[in-house]
Amino acid sequence: MANHIYKHIELTGTSTTTIEEAIQNALSRAARTVRNMRWLQVMETRGHVDNGMVSQWQVTIKVGFTLEE
Amino acid sequence: MANHIYKHIELTGTSTTTIEEAIQNALSRAARTVRNMRWLQVMETRGHVDNGMVSQWQVTIKVGFTLEE
Amino acid sequence: MANHIYKHIELTGTSTTTIEEAIQNALSRAARTVRNMRWLQVMETRGHVDNGMVSQWQVTIKVGFTLEE
Amino acid sequence: MANHIYKHIELTGTSTTTIEEAIQNALSRAARTVRNMRWLQVMETRGHVDNGMVSQWQVTIKVGFTLEE
Amino acid sequence: MANHIYKHIELTGTSTTTIEEAIQNALSRAARTVRNMRWLQVMETRGHVDNGMVSQWQVTIKVGFTLEE
Amino acid sequence: MANHIYKHIELTGTSTTTIEEAIQNALSRAARTVRNMRWLQVMETRGHVDNGMVSQWQVTIKVGFTLEE
Amino acid sequence: MANHIYKHIELTGTSTTTIEEAIQNALSRAARTVRNMRWLQVMETRGHVDNGMVSQWQVTIKVGFTLEE
Amino acid sequence: MANHIYKHIELTGTSTTTIEEAIQNALSRAARTVRNMRWLQVMETRGHVDNGMVSQWQVTIKVGFTLEE
Amino acid sequence: MANHIYKHIELTGTSTTTIEEAIQNALSRAARTVRNMRWLQVMETRGHVDNGMVSQWQVTIKVGFTLEE
Amino acid sequence: MANHIYKHIELTGTSTTTIEEAIQNALSRAARTVRNMRWLQVMETRGHVDNGMVSQWQVTIKVGFTLEE
Amino acid sequence: MANHIYKHIELTGTSTTTIEEAIQNALSRAARTVRNMRWLQVMETRGHVDNGMVSQWQVTIKVGFTLEE
Amino acid sequence: MANHIYKHIELTGTSTTTIEEAIQNALSRAARTVRNMRWLQVMETRGHVDNGMVSQWQVTIKVGFTLEE
Repeated sequence: MANHIYKHIELTGTSTTTIEEAIQNALSRAARTVRNMRWLQVMETRGHVDNGMVSQWQVTIKVGFTLEE
Repeated sequence: MANHIYKHIELTGTSTTTIEEAIQNALSRAARTVRNMRWLQVMETRGHVDNGMVSQWQVTIKVGFTLEE
Repeated sequence: MANHIYKHIELTGTSTTTIEEAIQNALSRAARTVRNMRWLQVMETRGHVDNGMVSQWQVTIKVGFTLEE
Repeated sequence: MANHIYKHIELTGTSTTTIEEAIQNALSRAARTVRNMRWLQVMETRGHVDNGMVSQWQVTIKVGFTLEE
Repeated sequence: MANHIYKHIELTGTSTTTIEEAIQNALSRAARTVRNMRWLQVMETRGHVDNGMVSQWQVTIKVGFTLEE
Repeated sequence: MANHIYKHIELTGTSTTTIEEAIQNALSRAARTVRNMRWLQVMETRGHVDNGMVSQWQVTIKVGFTLEE
Repeated sequence: MANHIYKHIELTGTSTTTIEEAIQNALSRAARTVRNMRWLQVMETRGHVDNGMVSQWQVTIKVGFTLEE
Repeated sequence: MANHIYKHIELTGTSTTTIEEAIQNALSRAARTVRNMRWLQVMETRGHVDNGMVSQWQVTIKVGFTLEE
Repeated sequence: MANHIYKHIELTGTSTTTIEEAIQNALSRAARTVRNMRWLQVMETRGHVDNGMVSQWQVTIKVGFTLEE
Repeated sequence: MANHIYKHIELTGTSTTTIEEAIQNALSRAARTVRNMRWLQVMETRGHVDNGMVSQWQVTIKVGFTLEE
Repeated sequence: MANHIYKHIELTGTSTTTIEEAIQNALSRAARTVRNMRWLQVMETRGHVDNGMVSQWQVTIKVGFTLEE
Repeated sequence: MANHIYKHIELTGTSTTTIEEAIQNALSRAARTVRNMRWLQVMETRGHVDNGMVSQWQVTIKVGFTLEE
């Protein structure tokens, strides 16, 4: 197991459909500028409510990625 | 941004199918008596187990709503 | 309500598709050796990331079961 | 297991004698206006001190009750 | 020290000027319908940001009040 | 002080009378199969409520015991 | 309400019988040297176990007392 | 409500006068390089003490900003 | 940077006007008997409420000071 | 990445010399009966004190291991 | 097991070499004025950084000692 | 004491030998691109286990650095 160093960033992804999709949306946006993402941890799950319905899931995640040598 | 005051209530919703539905069920029931709900935050996710299967999702949420002027 | 005694175990289940399935997978594996499981509580939700996609959901749960008399 | 929705309220009960009585006192007062209380969780245990003696136990509990259909 | 029972509610007050005013605004609104408020505890301090300036303080408090005999 | 290794298990004991008895009930049941229990820590205190009365105390404890050499 | 300043100390009291007595024992010992104790908060409840029985309750409390002018 | 993705950064601002100013100072410095800051959350409030006086407030905040499409 | 050893004490200061003044009041009282205070951390912010108004801020802080060689 | 299921156990290891050795001692004892241990997380670090010296490090860890198919 | 009463104090020890030495340094300084120290618990581990190197370990511990009869 | 503004980043460093070295490895890698690092705080200590041995220490730290004027 290589002695990598990892950095963590915190993101909030959103989706109108599921918690899983909100998380994937955050990762997809981050992947444009961050390479080597390895894992995520869910920090907080919230939602926006309109007329008694969840209109948007808002999931905050911490993402770890390898710093390149 | 108007200087609203918000109140929070804590609810547990249940569903036999998904975590998201358990949350929506809690909101739908609350909407009968609470107006102006704006956001929710997931506090705890539990489940009832029967014969090694999750038979019911139980999700506790905090809901914020605007107090009317 | 009988005065049962319960024991708790902590498990991590995994799934490539949803958070709910990762939890059910942990229960199904535990059910081979643990009887009388009654409830679960989600402790942590993580994911493995490959090429900017969640390739595996990893959900840690605490499970309570009745100790037999 | 019916798909009930539950609401939680937070109370502080007091007693000069025991922690258990402080909790029961909070429930007894709440029962005048709240029906269908199902469970409680102890959140915080405090006490008032006079002349080096605990003169009053103050126990904060969260109580869950079924919202009627 | 009388053996009162207390109930807690959670509110978010807002202000464009100070943290203290946001808290007082929440209390003033609550005082229209809640009697016998005795203490508050700050749970969370947030702010809305516009153009790099805090445009609104949002302070969430828990408020305890005596339930009347 | 010998360099023992300890293992922890988590249990929930129940009682209709006191918090202390619920804890002792959990220990008594565990003692049938676990030797060398040394200490306990209270993790959570809950109760079942029937008709506005605590009908059962439910106390979750962590118990440490020495692993035999 | 006078603008007093309070100091907090942390103590662990012990008892072979109840949680309440362990707390009172800590206060009684502290009262020999500390004046003006006003309140306590339970921080942790542990126990020593011998032969599957709780042989000693160990309750850690925080105590607040008024600093004299 | 657009499905934005947000990133969070953590900053400590300082001020010799008030908690609010320490927070605003952190935002003002961040605004030189970060666009679209939307909200802040106070994580920790500390102070430097000289000769029994608070000589500097040190407030750590988490700031969320929209990632541009 | 000298290898000092620090001790921490916990205090609650009060003020009728601001959170900052409550903290400074605690420090000013402590400075009569404690030398070399270096930093503080806010642990809890509470208030006393009279007639729907915050009549007293009560701020609990932890203070670190250098133990003299 | 195979969809393994993991179980967690909690152990306290001890050592007279270092924190790292206390952890390794816990793992070495567990390895006699537990196969496929994959990771550990430090939960708490304590020590026994004799005559002002740390005479024993006591480190509590959570260990995850793969449940065999 | 005697029914002792214990008091806790919180200290930060420092060292340029290891975490263990920082803890022992705090105990050694405290032992000049505190008798009967029995255990310690690590609360926080920090470090001072100079030129990308840890120049000082700063470990905050809670220490329990027996109050003499 | 200058009114600096600080930013925090979160890193995980690894080492096959000690917890301290894992932390230093994270700082050394970060120092290639981050100037003016001032302090660190340990957030989590984990380890990879192979054949009952800790094969790699994984320590997550938060690092604070001065933002240049």
